[in-house]
Amino acid sequence: MSRRPSVIIVGGGFGGLCAAQALKSAPVDVTLIDRNNYHLFQPLLYQVATGSLSAGEIAAPLRSVLSRQKNARVLLGAVVDIDPMRKHVLLADGADFEYDWLIVATGSQSAYYGHEAWREWAPSLKSVEEAIDVRHKILYAFEVAERIGDPAQRRAWLTFVIVGAGPTGVELAGAIAEIARQTLKNDFRSIDPKEAQIILMDSAARVLPPFPEDLAEKAKRSLVKLGVEVRTGVMVKDIDKEGLTIETHAGTHRLEARTVIWAGGVTVPALGKTLANRTKAETDRSGRIKIGPQLTVANYPDLYVIGDLALALNPDGMPLPGVAQVAMQQGTYVAKAIMGRVQGEPQQADFKYFDKGNLAVIGRWSAVANAFGVHMSGFPAWLIWAFIHLMYIVQFQSRILVLLQWAIQDLTFSRGARLITGTAATDFNFNNELASIAKKPTDGDKVVVNF
Amino acid sequence: MSRRPSVIIVGGGFGGLCAAQALKSAPVDVTLIDRNNYHLFQPLLYQVATGSLSAGEIAAPLRSVLSRQKNARVLLGAVVDIDPMRKHVLLADGADFEYDWLIVATGSQSAYYGHEAWREWAPSLKSVEEAIDVRHKILYAFEVAERIGDPAQRRAWLTFVIVGAGPTGVELAGAIAEIARQTLKNDFRSIDPKEAQIILMDSAARVLPPFPEDLAEKAKRSLVKLGVEVRTGVMVKDIDKEGLTIETHAGTHRLEARTVIWAGGVTVPALGKTLANRTKAETDRSGRIKIGPQLTVANYPDLYVIGDLALALNPDGMPLPGVAQVAMQQGTYVAKAIMGRVQGEPQQADFKYFDKGNLAVIGRWSAVANAFGVHMSGFPAWLIWAFIHLMYIVQFQSRILVLLQWAIQDLTFSRGARLITGTAATDFNFNNELASIAKKPTDGDKVVVNF
Repeated sequence: MSRRPSVIIVGGGFGGLCAAQALKSAPVDVTLIDRNNYHLFQPLLYQVATGSLSAGEIAAPLRSVLSRQKNARVLLGAVVDIDPMRKHVLLADGADFEYDWLIVATGSQSAYYGHEAWREWAPSLKSVEEAIDVRHKILYAFEVAERIGDPAQRRAWLTFVIVGAGPTGVELAGAIAEIARQTLKNDFRSIDPKEAQIILMDSAARVLPPFPEDLAEKAKRSLVKLGVEVRTGVMVKDIDKEGLTIETHAGTHRLEARTVIWAGGVTVPALGKTLANRTKAETDRSGRIKIGPQLTVANYPDLYVIGDLALALNPDGMPLPGVAQVAMQQGTYVAKAIMGRVQGEPQQADFKYFDKGNLAVIGRWSAVANAFGVHMSGFPAWLIWAFIHLMYIVQFQSRILVLLQWAIQDLTFSRGARLITGTAATDFNFNNELASIAKKPTDGDKVVVNF
Repeated sequence: MSRRPSVIIVGGGFGGLCAAQALKSAPVDVTLIDRNNYHLFQPLLYQVATGSLSAGEIAAPLRSVLSRQKNARVLLGAVVDIDPMRKHVLLADGADFEYDWLIVATGSQSAYYGHEAWREWAPSLKSVEEAIDVRHKILYAFEVAERIGDPAQRRAWLTFVIVGAGPTGVELAGAIAEIARQTLKNDFRSIDPKEAQIILMDSAARVLPPFPEDLAEKAKRSLVKLGVEVRTGVMVKDIDKEGLTIETHAGTHRLEARTVIWAGGVTVPALGKTLANRTKAETDRSGRIKIGPQLTVANYPDLYVIGDLALALNPDGMPLPGVAQVAMQQGTYVAKAIMGRVQGEPQQADFKYFDKGNLAVIGRWSAVANAFGVHMSGFPAWLIWAFIHLMYIVQFQSRILVLLQWAIQDLTFSRGARLITGTAATDFNFNNELASIAKKPTDGDKVVVNF
C-alpha cells in the first residue's frame, strides 16, 4: 500500500493556514499543529485590548476552517523539537511525527531586549490572553482613579504609556484616546476620563517607520488631534510597577504611569532558536532564520520556513517585513511548490513578494495607507483599511459581526466588550492598592466620594 | 446645605440594576457597588460555556448602563460587611459608606453541599470565568480524545456528565449534544464526535422540577432525541478527576467521565451569612434571608434584601423562586417604596409577585414554556424564549449581535466563540495527560494517528 506524502505545518497563523488551505487538492496528508485551537486575526487584537471586539470575533477555530478539507487534520499541541535529518517533529507531550515536507510558521513573539522583568509591568499584544490582560489594565486604571483622592496618585493612574510607535502602537494609542475622550465620557463621577494622558513613545525619530515620511507626519497629526502626546527620540531605561525611567537628549526623567503597554519589537520563539541550532542556519539579530529564494533552509530542501520566523530577502537585499501579507503569499507559494514536487516537476520558480502596501488606523474613520505607491490618509484610507481587514477575516460569521460592532461603535462611541475578567476585578491587588493609598497621609484615611 | 438621602445598592444583577434604574428621577444619591464592572445576563451564560456567544455579548458595563443617570454612581468593590445599626457598609479595600437606605442584592452562588473538593473537577456556571472554564473543558476533551489511542480512555474523555436537571442543566445538556452531533461533525479525523455520551442526571424523579409534569416529559423527550441520556433518581456520592461515583436504587456505580459540570444547587455568598448574623434575621436551609411583605429585614425598615439572597413568601406561604423576574420586580418595587418614603408617604403597599411563567430551551428551535398557565413546547416555545431573552438583554448593541449570532448558528450549526483560552491550550496538564497515556501499556508508546 503506497503511503501519501506527509506535509506537517507548524503554526496556524496567516502563513500556516494559507499553506494548509492551498494544499486542498494536493495528493498529500496535511497535519497542522498549533498550540491554540484557533486562528487569530492578529491585526485586530488591539481592538480586543481596547474593548471594541470580543476575542471570539477575531478568531476562527482551526478545525472549523479546515473541517471540509478531507486531506487535512488539526492537532492541538506544542512542537518542542525538530530533527531535520530524520525528518521528525517532537511534541511536548512526547508524540513524534514523521514528515516528507515540513513548513515551519510559528510567527514571532514580543521582545523586551534583555529586560524580561519589564514584561510584568508592560504587557505586549501578541495573544488573546495578553489582549484581555491589557484590556483589564486599561479599564481597571480608570476604576482605581475614580476611587482615589490624592491628585498625584490619580494622575499616575490616568497616565497611559505605549512604548513603540509602529502600527500596533499607533492603533493602540488612538483607541485609548477614544476610550478616554468618547466612550467613558459620562461614565465616572469623581474623575473626568478626558484628564487621561496618553503618551506614545519611540526611540526612533518618527512614528510608523515602515511608512513614507508624509504619511507618518499625517498619522502623527491625527494622533495629536485625538489627544495623544507623541514623544519620539525617547529611550526607555527602566519600567517598574509605578512607571518608567526614560532618557531623552535633555537627560534622564521619571514618568509616573500605572499603565504601560509594550509595542516594542519582536523576536523568534524558542522553537525558532532550536531549529536554527539543528540546521546551522544563518539568523539575523532578532533570530529570524535565513531562507533561500525558494523559502527552504540551506541544505534542507524539504524544510520550509515562512512568515515572521523567516528572514527572506528582496531582490534588492532588503529583508521582507513581518506582516500578514508576506506570510500568506509565502504560504501559498510553498503549497504550490510542494504540489509541483509531488507531481515530479524538476524545477520551481523563485518566490516573488507582491507588496500591496501598508495600512494603519488612527481612531474613528481615520487611517493612513500606502497602497501600490499611492499615499492616502483620513476617511478614504480608513475605508480601504476596513474593507481589507474584513475580507481577510477567515470566517463569514465573524465578518458580519465585526462589521456590525464597528458600525454601532462608530455611530455611538460605545464599546460592547468592556469586561474586566480573568483575575477578578476586585482581587487582592485592587483592595491592597486602595487600602495602601487610603493609608497615605496625603489624602487622609478615607476614600473620597463626590457626587 | 441639605444632603440628599443616600441609597446604596450592593450588586448589579437583575435586582440591583433594576432598582438603580427605577430610582432615576428620585431625589436621592444612588451608589451601586459590584465586584465586577458589568451586569451579566446570567440566563445565557450556558451559551458562553458552549461557544455560541462571547462573554462580551451577554454583559453590559454597569457604568455605561447608568452613564446618563446623573444621580447614580458605580463603584467597583467588594462589600465585606454591613453594620445595620450605624447604617454603614464596609468594602474589602477599607472604604466605608453611610446609607439612608440599603438594598442588598448579591445573588446566589453554587452549592456543593459540603463537598467543596468537587468544585475543582465539576465547575458550575455562575460567572464569566466559570463559563470560560467550562467551555475550555468541553472543547479540550474532544482535543484529547482525538489524540488518544486507548478506547476506554477515549470513551472517558468523550463522556460529559451534567449534574442537576433544572433549567441550566437541561440547556447545557442540549447544547453539548448539539456540539457533538452538529457543530463538530466534520472537525476530527480520529474520533467521531457523535460517539460522545452526554448524561444529564438528577436525584429528583424528573427533569425541570419547577415545570408542570407534561412539559417536563416533553423536555425529556426532546433531550433524548438530541442524544442526551437522562438519568433521574441518581445520587452523586463522589466526584474526582476521572469521573463520578453514583448511587441508584440498583446500588453504587462508577462512571468514568473527564468532563463533569455542576448545575446542582445554590447557596448564599459570604456577605449573606454576615448580614444574617448582624441582623439576627431568620434564614432557610440554603441561607436565604427572610424578608417581610415590604421586602425589608425584620427590625430594620431601611434594609431591603431582594433577589436570590431573599426568602420572600407568596401569600400561600411558598417561597418565591430564585429567578430573574422575581429579582427585577422586587428591584422596581423597592425603588418605588423608597421614593414614596422620601416624599413622606406614610404607608407602602405590600410587594406582589406577578408570575409570567417559566421557560427552558432545549437545543435548536426547541423549548418548553409555561406562560400565564399555557403549556407550550417545540418551536413556538422557542420563539417566545428567544423574544423574551433578547428583550431583556440590557444593551441595544448586544441585542442585535446576539440575534445575529443565533441566526447564523441556527442556520449553519457553526459556533463562533469556540476558543480555548485562559490556561494555554497546550499547558502542563495537556502534555502530562497525553504523556501519561502514551506510557500506558494498553496502547503502546505512540500516539495513534489515523487519516
